[in-house]
Amino acid sequence: MIKPSIPKGTRDFGPAVVKKRQYIFQTIRETFELFGFQPLETPAMENLSTLTGKYGEEGDKLIFKILDNGEILGRAQQAKDSRELATLICEKALRYDLTIPFARYVVMNQHELALPFKRYQMQPVWRADRPQKGRYREFYQCDADVVGSNSLLNEVELLMIYDRVFTKLGMQGYEVRVNNRKILSGLAEKIGKPELLMDITIAIDKLDKIGEAGVNEELLNRGLSQQDVDIINNFLRIEGNNTEKLQQLQTLLQGSTVAQKGIEELSFVLNSGLGRFQEAPIVDVTLARGLNYYTGMIVEAKAPAAVKMGSIGGGGRYDDLTGLFGLPGLSGVGISFGVDRIYDVLEELQLFPSTAQQGTKVLFLNLGEQALPVAFNHVMQLRDKGIAAEVFHEQAKMDKQMKYADKRGIPYVVIIGESELQENMLSIKNLQTGEQQKIAAGELLGFAF
Amino acid sequence: MIKPSIPKGTRDFGPAVVKKRQYIFQTIRETFELFGFQPLETPAMENLSTLTGKYGEEGDKLIFKILDNGEILGRAQQAKDSRELATLICEKALRYDLTIPFARYVVMNQHELALPFKRYQMQPVWRADRPQKGRYREFYQCDADVVGSNSLLNEVELLMIYDRVFTKLGMQGYEVRVNNRKILSGLAEKIGKPELLMDITIAIDKLDKIGEAGVNEELLNRGLSQQDVDIINNFLRIEGNNTEKLQQLQTLLQGSTVAQKGIEELSFVLNSGLGRFQEAPIVDVTLARGLNYYTGMIVEAKAPAAVKMGSIGGGGRYDDLTGLFGLPGLSGVGISFGVDRIYDVLEELQLFPSTAQQGTKVLFLNLGEQALPVAFNHVMQLRDKGIAAEVFHEQAKMDKQMKYADKRGIPYVVIIGESELQENMLSIKNLQTGEQQKIAAGELLGFAF
Repeated sequence: MIKPSIPKGTRDFGPAVVKKRQYIFQTIRETFELFGFQPLETPAMENLSTLTGKYGEEGDKLIFKILDNGEILGRAQQAKDSRELATLICEKALRYDLTIPFARYVVMNQHELALPFKRYQMQPVWRADRPQKGRYREFYQCDADVVGSNSLLNEVELLMIYDRVFTKLGMQGYEVRVNNRKILSGLAEKIGKPELLMDITIAIDKLDKIGEAGVNEELLNRGLSQQDVDIINNFLRIEGNNTEKLQQLQTLLQGSTVAQKGIEELSFVLNSGLGRFQEAPIVDVTLARGLNYYTGMIVEAKAPAAVKMGSIGGGGRYDDLTGLFGLPGLSGVGISFGVDRIYDVLEELQLFPSTAQQGTKVLFLNLGEQALPVAFNHVMQLRDKGIAAEVFHEQAKMDKQMKYADKRGIPYVVIIGESELQENMLSIKNLQTGEQQKIAAGELLGFAF
Repeated sequence: MIKPSIPKGTRDFGPAVVKKRQYIFQTIRETFELFGFQPLETPAMENLSTLTGKYGEEGDKLIFKILDNGEILGRAQQAKDSRELATLICEKALRYDLTIPFARYVVMNQHELALPFKRYQMQPVWRADRPQKGRYREFYQCDADVVGSNSLLNEVELLMIYDRVFTKLGMQGYEVRVNNRKILSGLAEKIGKPELLMDITIAIDKLDKIGEAGVNEELLNRGLSQQDVDIINNFLRIEGNNTEKLQQLQTLLQGSTVAQKGIEELSFVLNSGLGRFQEAPIVDVTLARGLNYYTGMIVEAKAPAAVKMGSIGGGGRYDDLTGLFGLPGLSGVGISFGVDRIYDVLEELQLFPSTAQQGTKVLFLNLGEQALPVAFNHVMQLRDKGIAAEVFHEQAKMDKQMKYADKRGIPYVVIIGESELQENMLSIKNLQTGEQQKIAAGELLGFAF
């Protein structure tokens, strides 16, 4: 018999973890819905052709493909290499992100949908990445997007959603950093090399990891002159509060129409007075976000500095996502929550509320034929009141039953022994304090569990 | 450009459907938790070796296998047939049910778990079945099981869970039918052919579909004599209320120890007085349930007869499930809800509550620069009160904005025009009744949306 195991990069979530994850999902879900976002669920499997070519060459390699059932040997024998083999015997693949299925859904349902379509989606995705600390082959994504609207009100609302969720989760000191891709475009324009926008973006994106010197080296390697690099350095060193930063950008990038548009957009999002924030978003000109489909605001949410966890979410505006599937001209904007990271942050800062950590609240001991129906009766009353309660499954030594309650983390035990039966009383023991008290059976529903 | 589509047998769930499905899941989840069941989530992918051989030969063919990433051509070239090919290039497969992953989890975590372990699990499973009406390749299972307890109290509680969930869902006229595999064993024993228990079970299981004549034919084909068939017919014709049925069973199967044990168990589950039911479970001696691992009580839940939907759940007691993975001697008992069927029943009987059918409740029209901050302010107040509300994303003709509300099914629209602004009032239009009224802005939070 082989010892059972699970595939590397995947996880079982036991009861305590599921409950805490549900708390995070529920907090995000409630907020999405209060803001008018509607839930969407797409299948775990997509046609391979829907996914191929959407995530770059590297991404294509990381897509999990599903073997066709039935006769495949004949087709397999025609393959000249592993890549061709996969396409010959796999029609379907596992969802790789939530964005492409969303775009696919919008195109398939374009005639029924009311635009703008505000959807949220919380589902697992699968990637054949090399597993490592904090990187899994199966993980949840948690996205909200608006498609079919150019209005910056969406940007404002999405930033408010970040603010509200992190505030609700009690995550003091979180940061929401914003920038605008048009400002980066303006920078590329300013130095006269708009065609190098992606190179500049990719280099700047690494600032956190490789520092200014590293970025400069990369920029030079990617074909920029020392003069260009100097301008970019001035740009990256812009400091001050949001207003000061916007003013400096205005000066540095004057003459670039696209940059001015980006500054204007950012300025509206932050200064329209429509958004109300516990923690105001911070302009961060060094924020680049790698994905090349962003065209307007970009945003990144960061965990409180104390936990050194970095990014816990991100997003931005993109044009023409559904164009991939034959429906051009729809602009979209969205954000995403990194649930695994948020979990780690809440755990480290001990921010999970006790309700997110509790299963059964009351265990009735099973102490004999006579007490059993009484216990069952009380248990049902507690359940009707919304309190999770159980009767121990068999008559056993009290010690064994107590140990079960302890191991399960059940905080209260109810004892109905012979004396309690005779007196129509119940003894309630608080396992956290060790305190035990006797109450009249009729008082159970009023007891402060 | 190819028109986008999804794999056959899979489904997108749009907002209205997701909300209704969430209502069903939430009702079941709440009940599971009130009864002390704890959530478990396992990965979508299992090692292929974990799944192979657990679902019979037919089942093995229906398992979706995941292609290994990287170099596979060399391995593929060694295959002599399609089946061997799959095992050479696939290490992982998609979850086929929730029971085997549960057993695998229990064995992997046996030293940490408090036994009995009461877990529930609601996750999708995948099967390469031929898609047809009501049969999908991706569908949710929704299971509660207790492992590590022989106590019949579990059976009683599981029947109460069925009763509570169907009652909560408002599904009047549902039936919960129970039998006990030991009674069927006793029947095989009674006719002196215990080795034909599975054949008898499989034949009886088809009674609904092929009728008594069909069952008799199948029994004769499977090696039973006409005399045996007569005894089985007498058995299948047992009628009356539960007590009468149990008495007739007692008589018919006297002399069989195992049958008497089964009758005793069934009798306890129904007559201990511990269970309280809105609709008492019904003894059904013709209930067989195909899966051969059941050893004690078996149960099937049926939709109200009016909807002709048949089974909406089932389960039973099994011995030694974890023995497959090297941990023998643990008994288990569980039930399952058929969420897709339950959805269809609630839809047909119009039992979804309005709360399960509503997204955004209030849309504020976007009628100009001046009104916008006022609208934003009110929207945030409603959200703080837990009411989902939106501002239309752009200034547009009132007609267009109204149409959007209508298409989205948003029941209330708030209008802040020039006169409302001047008077500090709000006009609220109920789109269902067409009624419109003007209230003071300060009264918004008291308005009965």
